[in-house]
Amino acid sequence: MTESPRPAALEVALAYYQAWTSKDVEAAMDHLADDVVCDAPAGRLDGVPAYRQFLGPFAQMLLGAELLAAFGDETTAVLVYDTRTPPVASAPGAECLTVRDGKIVSNRFIFDRLPFEAARRAAG
Amino acid sequence: MTESPRPAALEVALAYYQAWTSKDVEAAMDHLADDVVCDAPAGRLDGVPAYRQFLGPFAQMLLGAELLAAFGDETTAVLVYDTRTPPVASAPGAECLTVRDGKIVSNRFIFDRLPFEAARRAAG
Repeated sequence: MTESPRPAALEVALAYYQAWTSKDVEAAMDHLADDVVCDAPAGRLDGVPAYRQFLGPFAQMLLGAELLAAFGDETTAVLVYDTRTPPVASAPGAECLTVRDGKIVSNRFIFDRLPFEAARRAAG
Repeated sequence: MTESPRPAALEVALAYYQAWTSKDVEAAMDHLADDVVCDAPAGRLDGVPAYRQFLGPFAQMLLGAELLAAFGDETTAVLVYDTRTPPVASAPGAECLTVRDGKIVSNRFIFDRLPFEAARRAAG
């Protein structure tokens, strides 16, 4: 990160990331447009309530997150990070966000569900 | 993409991506350092032969790939794309690559293995 102003989409994406990885899911939701569309591994989520239901439980069990890369321009940002949770010690994720008028209007959320599924099965 | 020269890592990452998504896996391997380290969903891969064994079969069954975002600087690049293969109609992926002296020295490869696993089970 340099001290020059960050491109608009990257600025919003980082504020959103900072919020949800601090477990402040409501602050993260404040960066979403009302009609946000999120393409998550399990399918498309429409609107803020669905997004909250997807991200909230994961954020709450987060033990740590490490940002590996963050890039963006005026409309698009990409975040790559690693997460640590009780079921999965290292679960990297990527988000590709589109921002309009200061709000996240779409997001492509990529992570591997397999280790979470395996942990769920192991837990019975 | 503008016509100004791309940052070094992004240039290499895009050439590598262009090669493997065209099924020219050997041309993609030419962009890897001999001691490349790849953190794939199933674990760490050391060196070019392991990388080829991981990426080759996937590249060969690729029906199409669409680049959704590509960013980078002199040392790091991030690619986000969607892929289409016979078992999975839409499997987005992200790669976070580190480049040194014109070669990819490490890569974090993120995608959801669950639909591929489900397709394998369904196939018997």
